[in-house]
Amino acid sequence: MLDHLDDLHADLDAWLRIPSISADPAYAPEVARSAAWLAEALRRTGFPVVEIWPTPGAPAVFAEWPSAEADAPIALVYGHHDVQPVDPPELWVHPPFEPTRVDGPDGPELHARGAIDDKGNVAFHLLGMRAHLAATGRDTPAVTVKLLIEGEEESGSPHFAALLEQHKDRLACDVVVVSDTGMAAPDVPSAVTAMRGLADAEITLRGPAVDLHSGSFGGAVPNPLHALAELLAALHDDQGRVTLPGFYDKVRPLSDRERELMSRVPFDEQAWLAGPAASRATYGEAGFSTLERTGARPTAEVNGMWGGYTGPGHKTIVPAEAHAKLSFRLVADQRPEDVGPQLRAWVEANVPAGIEAEVHTPPGGVAPCASDLDSPAMGALLRAIGQAFDTEPGDVLFTREGGSGPEADLVEHLGAPLLFLGAGLPTDRIHSPNERVLLPMLYRGAEAAAHLWRELGAMRLR
Amino acid sequence: MLDHLDDLHADLDAWLRIPSISADPAYAPEVARSAAWLAEALRRTGFPVVEIWPTPGAPAVFAEWPSAEADAPIALVYGHHDVQPVDPPELWVHPPFEPTRVDGPDGPELHARGAIDDKGNVAFHLLGMRAHLAATGRDTPAVTVKLLIEGEEESGSPHFAALLEQHKDRLACDVVVVSDTGMAAPDVPSAVTAMRGLADAEITLRGPAVDLHSGSFGGAVPNPLHALAELLAALHDDQGRVTLPGFYDKVRPLSDRERELMSRVPFDEQAWLAGPAASRATYGEAGFSTLERTGARPTAEVNGMWGGYTGPGHKTIVPAEAHAKLSFRLVADQRPEDVGPQLRAWVEANVPAGIEAEVHTPPGGVAPCASDLDSPAMGALLRAIGQAFDTEPGDVLFTREGGSGPEADLVEHLGAPLLFLGAGLPTDRIHSPNERVLLPMLYRGAEAAAHLWRELGAMRLR
Repeated sequence: MLDHLDDLHADLDAWLRIPSISADPAYAPEVARSAAWLAEALRRTGFPVVEIWPTPGAPAVFAEWPSAEADAPIALVYGHHDVQPVDPPELWVHPPFEPTRVDGPDGPELHARGAIDDKGNVAFHLLGMRAHLAATGRDTPAVTVKLLIEGEEESGSPHFAALLEQHKDRLACDVVVVSDTGMAAPDVPSAVTAMRGLADAEITLRGPAVDLHSGSFGGAVPNPLHALAELLAALHDDQGRVTLPGFYDKVRPLSDRERELMSRVPFDEQAWLAGPAASRATYGEAGFSTLERTGARPTAEVNGMWGGYTGPGHKTIVPAEAHAKLSFRLVADQRPEDVGPQLRAWVEANVPAGIEAEVHTPPGGVAPCASDLDSPAMGALLRAIGQAFDTEPGDVLFTREGGSGPEADLVEHLGAPLLFLGAGLPTDRIHSPNERVLLPMLYRGAEAAAHLWRELGAMRLR
Repeated sequence: MLDHLDDLHADLDAWLRIPSISADPAYAPEVARSAAWLAEALRRTGFPVVEIWPTPGAPAVFAEWPSAEADAPIALVYGHHDVQPVDPPELWVHPPFEPTRVDGPDGPELHARGAIDDKGNVAFHLLGMRAHLAATGRDTPAVTVKLLIEGEEESGSPHFAALLEQHKDRLACDVVVVSDTGMAAPDVPSAVTAMRGLADAEITLRGPAVDLHSGSFGGAVPNPLHALAELLAALHDDQGRVTLPGFYDKVRPLSDRERELMSRVPFDEQAWLAGPAASRATYGEAGFSTLERTGARPTAEVNGMWGGYTGPGHKTIVPAEAHAKLSFRLVADQRPEDVGPQLRAWVEANVPAGIEAEVHTPPGGVAPCASDLDSPAMGALLRAIGQAFDTEPGDVLFTREGGSGPEADLVEHLGAPLLFLGAGLPTDRIHSPNERVLLPMLYRGAEAAAHLWRELGAMRLR
């Protein structure tokens, strides 16, 4: 495998230089360039079928390397080539789109936006495939490997379900391998078993028709910023629970077995707080641990808020409008499409007289999803990860991923079970300044992928 | 007086084209240009002494036209030549710095930022002085008229007190005539008797060191936007009272006589709500009328709020910081310097664990002030306004101004009583898009000034 490490580094470096930010329409050409670059890299790796699939938004990349054995299982790797915005840019130690190697306490790191989320996780499959062929002496992989790498994951994958439906036949598979997550720690082999869903919303409150002089009108007409503050302050109760009526109705309670499995994951809360969070206190829903709060419980988060005068100096106004962006993380069996109506009804019931409210929820959203802990494919994954970490399959722990992706769509449209194989770490600062990947984790990911194709190739899943 | 109307229009037009926005440092050269322009206009009007007085911020303009009679009273006119910012620019029907004449229901209007606040109010004194000399056939005014027109009123007049102290001797006077207010309605002659004070503040809350992925950290660490919403929601109680401990301690209660005088001012609340406010409901401190809430009671207003991701699309983060700009309107005998410590103590007592708070209160602030309703100078003002409106002094009503200016500094540093003579209207949209002046009100202001110099000239105030 070491033969191809230089390829991996050169490839990842070039790819990370492309600022494929899908949330900002100004970067649409860069997202397209990222897709074209990936397609070319897959061709160089040897994939005989590589196609760029357009969507009404950003393009996806599809590739396929059929196994010579006609009855070999088919594995579909899912990832994404778009990245998060980078603001605030001044907090980046190295420019976000100039990948920079840094020696860290756990080994060499590569710093860049997308270093792990998700270009690093996709890139290790290129190396993994080469390693698999080299180790087994084969010309074609032991399983038919398909890749579907979308370009809108960081924007909520608005066109992904339609893309799956459109290309259902080409995407047919026996197992989906999601490569957009990670492991509990550098020395802790683990497999994700669930991801949370996501629903975004934007609230706009309107009061006066124009910004008013606060000396003439202040204290005598409703101020939309006051109304927004009251609304958002009431979004959680004093137990840290979300107050939208009906929000918890479909939440599947955590079983004792699941809580026991999660408690085995080594987790140093103080170290976690001291990491990217640099936070001095935990906070959250009463009665749940931090790992449960981030992995297994739904949340409501205000992601942005603005209104009135925010420039230099002071402007003594009662502003006309106030705005907030919110996101809700969901767990099985909540449905993202339920959140909009719940939020809309709650806002309408809680805005004061004289304030007009508008709640916008973009279509789509992301459903939560979970793996079957006892399936044969899960057995293959645990063996592959164990081999990559030189340990037993029984030492591979189960974790839950607090983030969201369109994994539930894959299950729903392709009818295949989910496995998760990712090389990220909780300390990788994804979505934050100074995102990084720990390079030894990337190599482990590639090794695990190489083993996984061999393990799955020995099975007959149909 | 009509001879000089063309001069007034040409002068005001040219002056309003200068965007003298003092709150934004980028406009400092324009504020300086505004001062230079005013100095030249005062020289053209005939003032023998005209000087530009620098400050550490924006320059002020001083002018003096001595009366030939050595024992004539000295009147000092106060106004300002800086203006408010114009955002949001897209709401202006006419460009804010291209003065545009519009025919309105009450007569011709001039639309521009500063049209009344305060360039219109200052400009009518140029016409008033010419009219006074023409009507009395004098070469010098019946009182020594001084003008002090500052350039930082819309930024809280941070250097005004020091300027008064520095030029105390040159500014010595028997009465101060504040021209930065207005009247109750076009057909309602009235005199302002009090202005509110002002204290600005900015709150910064800090949580995580960087923006965090809401899937990994959301619901498990404190979110500064949630903390800010809770804080600002708690700034008022359910009676609309400000909750800062000690805030009301120095408030002088309204006497029954004052409440009775205020209740005589014609006020159509529905029309007021339908005006620039375009608000569907009043709001405010329980137990007080709208005119009392805006004129005679202190308030706390959030003027701006921001934090997290506010760009296009969605970014699922727990943001590192949250910010709010606040202003407090104060009434006699509150002190602006008390607000910072009160706010700071309250914020510190109310931020949740894991959130760090910083409260910034710019030095200075504005003290509240009030006139003596029974002074001889007030008698002269009521007669002058009565004459300008062809009515009796007893028909001139008393009002209170909800806005703030450095009037209390004038009282404190110069030891002279305050009169208010202004041509604004509550419907002039000051500080908002489409600010205007009703031109007939400007002419009335000039007439009243001409009468006032004659009335005061007949007195010996020392």
